[in-house]
Amino acid sequence: MSEALARFSINQMTVKQLSLPELAAACTDLGIPGVGLWREPVHSYGLDKAAKLMRDAGLTITTLCRGGFLTAIEPHARVRAIDDNKAAIDEAATLGTDTLVLVSGGLPPDSKDLHGARSRIADALADLAPYAAERGIRLAIEPLHPMFASDRCVVSTLTQALDLAELFPATQVGVCVDTYHVWWDDQAPAQIARAGRGERLHAFQLADWITPLPEGVLNGRGRLGEGSIDLRSWRALVEEAGYGGPIEVELFNEELWAAPGAELLAETAQTYVQHAC
Amino acid sequence: MSEALARFSINQMTVKQLSLPELAAACTDLGIPGVGLWREPVHSYGLDKAAKLMRDAGLTITTLCRGGFLTAIEPHARVRAIDDNKAAIDEAATLGTDTLVLVSGGLPPDSKDLHGARSRIADALADLAPYAAERGIRLAIEPLHPMFASDRCVVSTLTQALDLAELFPATQVGVCVDTYHVWWDDQAPAQIARAGRGERLHAFQLADWITPLPEGVLNGRGRLGEGSIDLRSWRALVEEAGYGGPIEVELFNEELWAAPGAELLAETAQTYVQHAC
Repeated sequence: MSEALARFSINQMTVKQLSLPELAAACTDLGIPGVGLWREPVHSYGLDKAAKLMRDAGLTITTLCRGGFLTAIEPHARVRAIDDNKAAIDEAATLGTDTLVLVSGGLPPDSKDLHGARSRIADALADLAPYAAERGIRLAIEPLHPMFASDRCVVSTLTQALDLAELFPATQVGVCVDTYHVWWDDQAPAQIARAGRGERLHAFQLADWITPLPEGVLNGRGRLGEGSIDLRSWRALVEEAGYGGPIEVELFNEELWAAPGAELLAETAQTYVQHAC
Repeated sequence: MSEALARFSINQMTVKQLSLPELAAACTDLGIPGVGLWREPVHSYGLDKAAKLMRDAGLTITTLCRGGFLTAIEPHARVRAIDDNKAAIDEAATLGTDTLVLVSGGLPPDSKDLHGARSRIADALADLAPYAAERGIRLAIEPLHPMFASDRCVVSTLTQALDLAELFPATQVGVCVDTYHVWWDDQAPAQIARAGRGERLHAFQLADWITPLPEGVLNGRGRLGEGSIDLRSWRALVEEAGYGGPIEVELFNEELWAAPGAELLAETAQTYVQHAC
């Protein structure tokens, strides 16, 4: 393994055109030590099989994406969400990762109450955090860019994510810092320091910001180095805050998904070394 | 004029299918007392003619949109931007409005330095603010949603807008609060109070937040009441902060622009009464 890739992890969504065995093989070929996995492709392949595949390839599963969607008001929907998150925690434990990333969820139908939605996330975490801790899993609340506040994640800033996380022990709940979601926020550097002091920096992800955004804004993340984000300075901030863990590259991009997966993975590792090391 | 519409102003872009004379006539028909104008259609129609048209119709020009784009590094581009903003200030004075809205500008080519871009805005305002004040014009810095940070406006929050405005007297530089841009920000209510205390609430605009966002994200603003924003609570916040000025509705929406303009204007006034009064 190249020294420069020692902390590199590829989030599976970046190269979703690769099957899990193809992903494991390509990582081995390229000397990539870590992968972030998603629940749906793991389900399709089989949970135990996926765990064994990654273990046999010597790959570290740096995160499982994702739990969350904890903002429902309707009681049955809340119960289903809690149950689904407990299942995600169990899956994370089976896979042998230590971190489950949470995307908190958007506004419920007909609601305009962001504050209320955030408080329901806290209520749900009170159930989930101890359950996760008993299984060796840390929850990482990921603030999503404010453009997702209504339909995907009412937690829009690291400040809000930490306000939620700090209701629980740091061993149970921390944050996931993704450059794509926080780069615009002049308060994020101080919040990264706050997270570091509290030992709540549980995951760090890289993507670049490019425009124009595509319709729906979900699948337009830029390759490292082609956008507006000073990736090295964000890496320096998390490291100054004490973070020494994996650095996951997570791109959602229709154009990249149309490329051959193994080549895309090689290119992604190369841009990581070039722009984030 | 209906009492409910006493503070209503229609931003011209909402009904850009209407020519200026059509806009003036439709406002008169509907009892709408105010309009926010844009420079380009005013140029096309003729500045003095536009001023006379609005004056003769008894319409108040609540804002002129827009100056700004003050983040350039290259010296000639900076000079051109200052000159263009002085022209905008002169035009505002000719039109008889008291407020020029500023959209600050995005990152210059190849720059990743948001902080540096914000400081260049302050430098430019040092030239522009006294020039504007001498002509009876207040500058209103409009924070734009963080999804515009790279390509349109590096000022993403009311906090940042006020940090810039407070470098100058309140009679010279304040802020424009647009619900579409600030609704996600849990710090915005306190910043509205700060702006009110400093007499820097110079303009207030309404639009609703709907998803999915269209490609490019510019022209997907929602009709009042169809989205996620609690418009009445934002109106209450600015009023509690002492704002008693015009309330402009500013929608950019391709679908609305395809509708007959006078009908759209009537509908917009109706949704204003229904959802924001």
